[in-house]
Amino acid sequence: MNAEILCVGTEILLGDIVNTNAAYISRGLAACGVGCYYQSVVGDNPGRLTDSLKLALSRADIVVTTGGLGPTYDDLTKETVADCFGLEMELHQPSLDRMIAIFSGGSRPFTKNNEKQAYMPRGATIFDNDRGTAPGLAVEKDGKIVIMLPGPPSEMTAMFDNKVIPFLESRSTQILRSSTIHIFGMGESAVEDVLHDYMLEHTNPTVAPYAKTGEVQLRVTAAAPDAAAADAMIGPVVEEIKAIFPDHVYGVDAGTMHNALVRALAAAGRTIAVAESCTGGMIAARITEVPGASDVLLCGVCAYANESKIEFLGVGRDTIVANGAVSAETALEMARGVRLRSGADIGIATTGIAGPGGGSAEKPVGLVYVALSTADKEETRELRLGRGYANERELIRNAACLHAMHLALKEGIA
Amino acid sequence: MNAEILCVGTEILLGDIVNTNAAYISRGLAACGVGCYYQSVVGDNPGRLTDSLKLALSRADIVVTTGGLGPTYDDLTKETVADCFGLEMELHQPSLDRMIAIFSGGSRPFTKNNEKQAYMPRGATIFDNDRGTAPGLAVEKDGKIVIMLPGPPSEMTAMFDNKVIPFLESRSTQILRSSTIHIFGMGESAVEDVLHDYMLEHTNPTVAPYAKTGEVQLRVTAAAPDAAAADAMIGPVVEEIKAIFPDHVYGVDAGTMHNALVRALAAAGRTIAVAESCTGGMIAARITEVPGASDVLLCGVCAYANESKIEFLGVGRDTIVANGAVSAETALEMARGVRLRSGADIGIATTGIAGPGGGSAEKPVGLVYVALSTADKEETRELRLGRGYANERELIRNAACLHAMHLALKEGIA
Repeated sequence: MNAEILCVGTEILLGDIVNTNAAYISRGLAACGVGCYYQSVVGDNPGRLTDSLKLALSRADIVVTTGGLGPTYDDLTKETVADCFGLEMELHQPSLDRMIAIFSGGSRPFTKNNEKQAYMPRGATIFDNDRGTAPGLAVEKDGKIVIMLPGPPSEMTAMFDNKVIPFLESRSTQILRSSTIHIFGMGESAVEDVLHDYMLEHTNPTVAPYAKTGEVQLRVTAAAPDAAAADAMIGPVVEEIKAIFPDHVYGVDAGTMHNALVRALAAAGRTIAVAESCTGGMIAARITEVPGASDVLLCGVCAYANESKIEFLGVGRDTIVANGAVSAETALEMARGVRLRSGADIGIATTGIAGPGGGSAEKPVGLVYVALSTADKEETRELRLGRGYANERELIRNAACLHAMHLALKEGIA
Repeated sequence: MNAEILCVGTEILLGDIVNTNAAYISRGLAACGVGCYYQSVVGDNPGRLTDSLKLALSRADIVVTTGGLGPTYDDLTKETVADCFGLEMELHQPSLDRMIAIFSGGSRPFTKNNEKQAYMPRGATIFDNDRGTAPGLAVEKDGKIVIMLPGPPSEMTAMFDNKVIPFLESRSTQILRSSTIHIFGMGESAVEDVLHDYMLEHTNPTVAPYAKTGEVQLRVTAAAPDAAAADAMIGPVVEEIKAIFPDHVYGVDAGTMHNALVRALAAAGRTIAVAESCTGGMIAARITEVPGASDVLLCGVCAYANESKIEFLGVGRDTIVANGAVSAETALEMARGVRLRSGADIGIATTGIAGPGGGSAEKPVGLVYVALSTADKEETRELRLGRGYANERELIRNAACLHAMHLALKEGIA
C-alpha cells in the first residue's frame, strides 16, 4: 500500500507556517509500512483542491489530507472528497452532540456555522477530535481510502496516533522498521564511496545515507510481517556497518551527539564540565537541552576573554602569553581547570578562531583545538575546520562542538 | 508571475526532516510579489521527479526546486530538468575550480564523484554556494524558469536571499523592499488587536504580523520602482508603529534579540557577562553567534549544579539554603557575581525550572527568575513561562533567554 499526503491551507503556501504535519504523517505512515511517494500543499481553493485530490487518488491507495475541516466557508475538504466519490453529505448526530457538549463547557457560544463540522460524507468512519471541535474521518470507495484530519498540529497528531494508526494497522499485512547509524568524522561522499556496492546489494533491509549537519546518518530499513522479524533482519546489517566504520560510528538510534553523550555518561555514572571559548556556550546549551542533563553536567564556562580563562578556569597567564589563547596548551589547561574547579570526572574544552575576523597566516580561521582531561588521561586535538566559505562561523563552531563532545563520548563509553 | 515549489528528497517523504525550505521560499516569493499555488515533495526517483516537474511546469511560470544537486548517484534534479528542456549537460569549469579550492582548504579529500556537482545544463545561470559545495542554478526556456537550489537549509537560505532574489528582481519592473519591526512581550493577537484598522488602511506599504518563537514581528513592505522610493515609503510607517508600541519595540531589522544586544553594547562601549542555570549556556551561545561578540562578552558561566553557583559565581550558600536555587535572590547573586568576577559592566542571570521534572506546587515547571546587575542598578523579574504543554522545556528555556537579554538590551540602549 502506498499513500500520499495532501495538506490544504493558503497559510502554508504563503510561508506563514512550516508544514510540520506532512513530516509527522510521513513518519507515522512509514512506521506502519505504508510508503509515501508524494506530499503536496494546495490552498483553500475548490478547483485546485479538486484537481490535487484527483491526481493524488490516481497515484496512491491512501490519501491523507490535513486542514479544511473547520466551520468557515473556505473549509472545503470533506465536501470536495464527497463530490469526487459521489457521496452525499449528511448530519452525523453523535458529532453534533459532542460539539455542543464541548461548547457548553467553555466560554464561547455555539454559533450556527459550527454545525458544518458535523456534516459528513455518507458512510464515513468518524475519528473523534480529543483536542478540538472538528472531527476527522475516513472514506473508502473502489479500493481507495481518503483520511481527512484537522490542520492544527496538536489536534492532528493526537488523532493520527490514537485513531488513524489503529485504522491502518487493521488493514495491513506488513510493517516497516528502521534503525539509524550515526557516523562522525566522514563526509557523505566518503561514506558512500565505501558503501556503494553494499547499498546496491541490499534491498531488504535497504541502506540509505543522509548528510546531517556535521555527521552522516545511515538508515537501515526492513519490511517484514512483524516487528520481531524486521528487527532480526536489521540487526546483522547494523553490526556489519559498525564493523566497516569502527572509528566513526558513535551510536545507533542515538538522536544527537549530545543526547548520546548524556546517555553514555548517565549509564557510566560519570560527570562532565565544559570550558568553551570559540563555541561560546553551545556545548553546554546542547547538553542541557537533554532532560536529565543535571545528573551529568556540573558546569560550563564560556571563557571568551583571556582574563576569564585565567580568572574562572585557572589557565596560566604564561601559557597564554607563550602559546596564545588558541593553542593546544591553553585548551588543555581549560579542560583541566574546569574539571578540577567543578569536581567533574571529565573536563572538555574548545578554543579556536571561528571567524570571520581574527585569522592570520599562522592561525587561520577554522583552526580549533579541543581537549579532554580526566584524572587518568589528557588529550588534545588540532582541527582545521575552515573550508573557505564566506560565512562559516556557525559551521566551524558546530564542528568544534561535535569534535569536543566526540572526545568525551569515546571516553564516556570506554 | 506565479511559482511552484518542488522539494526533492526521500528523507522528506520519510518524515525524517521537516520541510522548512518550502515555507522559506514561499515567503520570499510572496515578498517579491510572486504568488505560489502549490508546494510538492517528491523522492529521489527519476520517473516521479520527471512527472512532478512536468506537472509543475504546466501550472506555473517559475518552478523552484530544492535538493538533488549533490554528488551521489541519486542526486538527479539537474539531469532531469536538462532532459525536460532538451539541454545537454556540460562541465562548468569555474564551479569545478571553486570546489577544488574549497576541498584543498579543508581536511577531506576531493573524491571523483564530487565533479558531478560542476556539470550543468548548457546555458544555465549559476549561483555560487557560499556555504557548501553544490552550486545552484537557473534554466530558462520558452517563458518558463526553473530555479534549482541545494537542499541543506543553511545553503539554500543564503543562496535564495543573495542570489535568487536579485535574479528575480532583475526580471521585474517593480521592486519590493521591507523592514521588520521586532516586538517583545506582546502576543500576536494583542498586537493585531491594536493594529487591526491600521493594517487594513495601509496597502502600500503593507503591514503584516508574524508570530515568531517568543516575539512578534511586523513586516512593512513597499512596492516601488526603486529602492530609494520604497525606503521613503517605509520610513514613516516604521516610526508610527514604534510610537504605538514604545515599550515593546526592541529593534528594526535587528535580525535577532542577541544581534540587537551585541550591536547596542558595542555602540555603547559596554561589556557583559552571563550566568545561566536553566538556560544552560544558550544565552552565551547566542551572543557568541554574532561576529564581533568578543568585543562585548567577557564570559558566561553555566552554573548548573549548586556547588558551581557557589564556586564559580560566589553565590552564598546561605542564599541557596534560605531561598532555593530557583529564587530572585539566587538570580541576583549570580548576575552580580559574574559581573564582579569578570569585570564586565553588565551581569545577567537566569535560574528556573525548565522541566519536564523538578517542578512542585510551590515552584512549578516554568517558574524562572532573571536578573540584571550593574554598578548602579539591580533588577530581578519573576516569570511564569509554563503553559502546560507536554514538552515545553525548550520553549521555557528560549523564553527565559529572551527575557534576560531584553533586560540587558534596555540597559544597554539606555
